Amino acid sequence: MMEDLHGYYIEDLKEGMTAAFGKTITDADIGIFAGVSGDTNPVHLNDDFAKSTIFKTRIAHGMLGAGFISAVFGTKMPGPGCIYVSQNLRFKAPVRVGDTLIAQVTVKKILAQKKFVEFDTVCTVAGKAVIEGEATLMVPSKG
Amino acid sequence: MMEDLHGYYIEDLKEGMTAAFGKTITDADIGIFAGVSGDTNPVHLNDDFAKSTIFKTRIAHGMLGAGFISAVFGTKMPGPGCIYVSQNLRFKAPVRVGDTLIAQVTVKKILAQKKFVEFDTVCTVAGKAVIEGEATLMVPSKG
Amino acid sequence: MMEDLHGYYIEDLKEGMTAAFGKTITDADIGIFAGVSGDTNPVHLNDDFAKSTIFKTRIAHGMLGAGFISAVFGTKMPGPGCIYVSQNLRFKAPVRVGDTLIAQVTVKKILAQKKFVEFDTVCTVAGKAVIEGEATLMVPSKG
Amino acid sequence: MMEDLHGYYIEDLKEGMTAAFGKTITDADIGIFAGVSGDTNPVHLNDDFAKSTIFKTRIAHGMLGAGFISAVFGTKMPGPGCIYVSQNLRFKAPVRVGDTLIAQVTVKKILAQKKFVEFDTVCTVAGKAVIEGEATLMVPSKG
Repeated sequence: MMEDLHGYYIEDLKEGMTAAFGKTITDADIGIFAGVSGDTNPVHLNDDFAKSTIFKTRIAHGMLGAGFISAVFGTKMPGPGCIYVSQNLRFKAPVRVGDTLIAQVTVKKILAQKKFVEFDTVCTVAGKAVIEGEATLMVPSKG
Repeated sequence: MMEDLHGYYIEDLKEGMTAAFGKTITDADIGIFAGVSGDTNPVHLNDDFAKSTIFKTRIAHGMLGAGFISAVFGTKMPGPGCIYVSQNLRFKAPVRVGDTLIAQVTVKKILAQKKFVEFDTVCTVAGKAVIEGEATLMVPSKG
Repeated sequence: MMEDLHGYYIEDLKEGMTAAFGKTITDADIGIFAGVSGDTNPVHLNDDFAKSTIFKTRIAHGMLGAGFISAVFGTKMPGPGCIYVSQNLRFKAPVRVGDTLIAQVTVKKILAQKKFVEFDTVCTVAGKAVIEGEATLMVPSKG
Repeated sequence: MMEDLHGYYIEDLKEGMTAAFGKTITDADIGIFAGVSGDTNPVHLNDDFAKSTIFKTRIAHGMLGAGFISAVFGTKMPGPGCIYVSQNLRFKAPVRVGDTLIAQVTVKKILAQKKFVEFDTVCTVAGKAVIEGEATLMVPSKG
């Protein structure tokens, strides 16, 4: 049964393979993320404050998008069994309630000896990049 | 009243200033983070699967620690009004239920002209680094 | 159908009537309350910080107990249709994870002309008062 | 690191000092507060029932506003380390989804010998008071 839960092994991965996860951002997502992370910045929670910022409306936490990247890695590719080594994040544009935010990862380089796999990671809204970055994961081998 | 909510301005910051936020990781935190992020990797949620991994027990999502870094930036220093530009994360060790995870940020370099501030960011459990990284934020000036 | 949902009318209430609601406090309750209220005080969330306080362990938010009083009023007695006018709260003792916290309200005085009803309110753990107070509600009349 | 988390000491406070916390009330806030408090009064959750009341639409729980007062005390001023002694609440007007609810506290009187500090507390929507009250907190001294 445990094997059913396991994700890809490093031998299964090839450069260029992609996977994605996303959802439409709701007020509930923002409120729950604020609660669990402790990030109650009013730019996420307070319309009046947000109006006074460059964003004009409340925006989602950037780290919620980062969580979606983690969701792709943890549930799709490589999936359960991998270990998160590092992640770089460049926040390019705000995400608002009602936006459908998709995290997509692409295998960039496979370092078979170290069992490391490098990925390009991007979060998009309507095809526009809102978070760009790269990640390294350790992926188990079958052997 | 909005000014009551605003955080530090770039003129208020000096190299070496620090701020922190953290909490003790509970099953509720892990369950809620899994739900909001979509990262339902069994290493976070399934004791039996976790037992078969190198970690032996369920572990918290790395991005939950990243969320605590965001909480320091968004609520303590620089606080409301800042803009998250980038964040690097290197995951060094697992975090388990019952661990008290503290995110601490330290002002490293102030680039006054661009209004950019570079921070060292570290998450620790019992004084041991579990996530290391660096961040850049844009911080408003008073002028 | 709406009438099925309605609570007591003022004519139904008598001095000395009581009602109660409570639950066992879990880490999830504290984490969720912190999130929805924004009260991320480390005395509620951080074992290490809590150890440095007079309480020695994390404690629940006092306002969570106040929420249970609101639950009695809103769902038991007087129930749906009443209007909360005022509530006094005196926090007497801490509440910890695993404590079963019961809110009980007792009709103290009925001011029929103003449609106001005064209640004694108490929250207890194992029979010991942890929050004492009084409340006034406006309760609709049948007429 | 624990000292980084600590709030104001009584010597730091002066009459007239203020702090605030607030957020825009969403359906998620109301649903989550109902769940954690047990206050499932249909005036908060049921459009059809709410239409039959004096409020005409669903309203937020009064105790959610009280939670925001607790958030100011627990995270802003006095901040971590203080002890909540008492709180009076007078509910003056309903709060609806979409309202930005701000809790503001003002130091009214410092009783240095008892280490008690009295605060005026007010919750406002668009500048109008919806909850008025007073609170007493015990605030640690540096000595």
